[in-house]
Order: sequence, then C-alpha cells, then structure tokens
Amino acid sequence: MRVRNKPWAKDKLLEHSALVIPDPENYKGKWREKFNHSAPLHVEIGTGKGQFILGMAEQYPDINFIGIELEESIIVSALEKLLDKPLPNVLFLNKNANDLTDFFAENEVDELYLNFSDPWPKNRHEKRRLTYKSFLQNYRQVLKTKGKLNLKTDNRGFFEYSLESFSQFGLTLGNISLDLHASECPGNIMTEYEEKFSAKGQPIYRCEASF
Amino acid sequence: MRVRNKPWAKDKLLEHSALVIPDPENYKGKWREKFNHSAPLHVEIGTGKGQFILGMAEQYPDINFIGIELEESIIVSALEKLLDKPLPNVLFLNKNANDLTDFFAENEVDELYLNFSDPWPKNRHEKRRLTYKSFLQNYRQVLKTKGKLNLKTDNRGFFEYSLESFSQFGLTLGNISLDLHASECPGNIMTEYEEKFSAKGQPIYRCEASF
Ligand SMILES: C[S@@+](CC[C@H](N)C(=O)[O-])C[C@H]1O[C@@H](n2cnc3c(N)ncnc32)[C@H](O)[C@@H]1O
Ligand SMILES: C[S@@+](CC[C@H](N)C(=O)[O-])C[C@H]1O[C@@H](n2cnc3c(N)ncnc32)[C@H](O)[C@@H]1O
Repeated sequence: MRVRNKPWAKDKLLEHSALVIPDPENYKGKWREKFNHSAPLHVEIGTGKGQFILGMAEQYPDINFIGIELEESIIVSALEKLLDKPLPNVLFLNKNANDLTDFFAENEVDELYLNFSDPWPKNRHEKRRLTYKSFLQNYRQVLKTKGKLNLKTDNRGFFEYSLESFSQFGLTLGNISLDLHASECPGNIMTEYEEKFSAKGQPIYRCEASF
Repeated sequence: MRVRNKPWAKDKLLEHSALVIPDPENYKGKWREKFNHSAPLHVEIGTGKGQFILGMAEQYPDINFIGIELEESIIVSALEKLLDKPLPNVLFLNKNANDLTDFFAENEVDELYLNFSDPWPKNRHEKRRLTYKSFLQNYRQVLKTKGKLNLKTDNRGFFEYSLESFSQFGLTLGNISLDLHASECPGNIMTEYEEKFSAKGQPIYRCEASF
C-alpha cells in the first residue's frame, strides 16, 4: 500500500488511545473484559484503511474485532472512519503482526483474517510472507483449537504458496474460491484492495484454513 | 468427451488384447512382470485419446504407464496412436476406474494422473467426481506410501472441490498452479483437452497431492 507521509498521524493515534491501543501486551488474555462483551474475538492482520473490519463489525455486532496495521499513516484512515461512525466492537493496534503472541494469550482468538497481504514474490523473501510457517505457528498459538484463518488475495503466486504452506503445516482447507466475484458471495465484505482489483476484472482468491 | 459411435471399436480392441488388456484382474500385483521391466508404475485415469500418456511414455522410458479409459470409442484412438508409434512401456485398460482395486495390488502404483476429469458440477453428483473421498480411498490403497496423485483441469469448480477434498482426506498439496501456461512449465505434456482449453486462453489448474 502506498504510504503518503502523514506527520500528524502519530499524534492523532495517541490522542485516541482508547481506540488504537498503544499497549496491547497489557490486555493479553483479557480482551473480552476490555471490550466489556464476552463475544468471539476476530483479528485482522494488515488491516489497511479499515474498510473490511469496520464493515464486518457493523455486520456482526456480537463479535469483537481487532485490526492490526503496521503503518501509522495507513491505520490513521481506519481510525478516522471509526470516529465518523463509532462502533463498540472494534479496536485497532498500530503494531507489527510478528509480535502477535505478545498481544494474545493461547486460545484467545476465534478467527484470523489475512486480506491482500503483501505477496513478497521473491523466493528469498519467503519468510516475510504472512503465511510462512513461522507465522502459522503464531496463529496456531493464539487461535482456539479448530480456529480458522480466512484469506483473500488477488495475487496468484501468493495464493498458490499459501495453499501449499497451509497444507504442509497440516491445516484443513475449506471454502476455496478461485474467482470470488464470479458468483454471488453473500455476506462478503470487500476490502479496499478487493474493490480496486475486482473492478479491474482480476479474479479474487479466497480460502479458509482450519487449525 | 463427445463420443462418436464406432461400432468397429470393440473388435479392434479385442484384436489388440496385448495392448488393451481385457483381463487386468489377472495381472493384479504382477504388472512389473507383465511389462517385463521392473520400473515405477504410473496410472492415468480417464486417458481419453491417449496423447498425454503416450507423450509421457516417450519422455520417460524407465517408467511403466497404464491408461484407463471407460469408453471404447475413445480409447480406440489411443490404441491407434500406439500402433502407429509402438512403445514398450504403455498398456491400456478399457475399464471403469471404479474397479481400480481389482486391477492393482496394495502399494503397486507409484503415481496416479487425473487429467481434465469430468467435473460433475451438480451437488447431487458429487460421488461421481474422481476426487470424491471414496475414490481417494481406492487411490490410497493402490498407491505406495507417499505415492502421488497429479491433477490437471480447466474446470474451476472441480479444482476448488478437489483441493478441499484432498485436504479433508489428509493429503498434502504441492506444486499448485492456478495458471499453468502463464509461465514456463518445462516437461509438461499437454492432453487433448489441455490443448483445446489453453488455446482459448482459459487458465489450466494443476496440483499434486501426496498420500
Ligand atoms: C496490500 S495492503 C492490504 C490492505 C487491506 N487489507 C486491503 O485488503 O485493502 C497490506 C497491509 O498490510 C500491512 N502489513 C504488512 N505487514 C504487516 C505486519 N507484519 N503487521 C501488520 N501489518 C502489516 C501493510 O502495512 C499494508 O497496509
Ligand atoms: C473430459 S475427458 C478428458 C480426456 C483426457 N484426459 C484429456 O485431458 O484430454 C474425461 C475422460 O475420462 C473418461 N472417464 C470418466 N470416468 C471414467 C471412469 N470411471 N473410468 C475410466 N474412465 C473414465 C471419459 O470417458 C473421458 O474420456
């Protein structure tokens, strides 16, 4: 995602530290209390500008959502959307997903979402892909038994890689689509990237992987 | 595959019963002796007119190949190709793959190929798909431990289904391509259907599943 530099973003995020939690380590194992709502917890990694997670939170008021995004200049757009249209069941972390196990206790998360993750196409960058086995290990740790990872992408190479990586890690694949928008996909919430690429006629790939 | 009725096909197949084996039950567990060559055994199910398996047999003289095809009017074309260009490492069966375990002993087969299998798109026909779990059970029985199933298809729905079916059966996926001809695929031998559909610009899907 192209990052326009927004020097004011840092301050804005700090100002709204009730929505963009600066110290998620302190809520590890206690997110349900933090939300004050004992509901399932769904986490999106690489939330971007937040369209997906905010749409999901609106559609599913009885699920708690946390969106993690590395770039402050990007997550600030998600924050602005949330300020425009407050929702009690969404929080954001301006953090690196590498540290996922610092933020969530074992079995704390019900579902994970990876939407249009950076594909890192070069072989020597394999370890950076969010579906590399070291990430899957972290996902397994924070997810409930039989917890689910949901993936959407426009990137063919990344999708091929992810299917193989999931399978080799022993995950069970389900709900695969190799052209999500070719047929009706009721309940599907589009991400920013999904809107852009599907409008160009590119196929969107989707799958679920159960741990 | 459209079947032009060929009333003479039956006789032609009988005439060449050294190449189109009428009684494969009698060679169960003994195919290496039958070939008189103690090489790996690869079996294609739904061989059609034989272009793939004959190309493979030419490319890999140290592998024995058996092609199974239900329709006599179709397999007769494969026989004609073999008669035109004899090869010592190919045999055909004009049989139904449902009976696979009658033809091969446990652990007798090294690899299986499914190329452009009939997709049976209707849900109520799921059991007819050659990647339905009852077929996978038979494949597991005849395949060596860690034996491999190779699949190519142009049919998106069938490919999505097959990936899920393999995964749910506990197979490990590898070598997935969602557009085989988008990049070089060295060593790939095209089937008749593959030539037709890739010429139209349709993506060809490929994967391997290890037992
Ligand atoms: C290609 S964008 C997709 C954004 C959004 N999910 C969408 O579909 O429109 C990928 C996003 O993931 C973020 N990201 C990449 N690696 C990350 C990591 N390790 N932790 C958190 N966010 C990350 C990037 O900053 C970027 O905003
Ligand atoms: C769509 S055609 C593909 C032919 C060839 N593999 C290709 O790629 O050009 C599928 C073939 O599988 C054969 N077939 C379908 N079910 C079969 C079965 N149970 N046993 C053997 N052959 C079968 C059909 O008769 C047909 O020739």
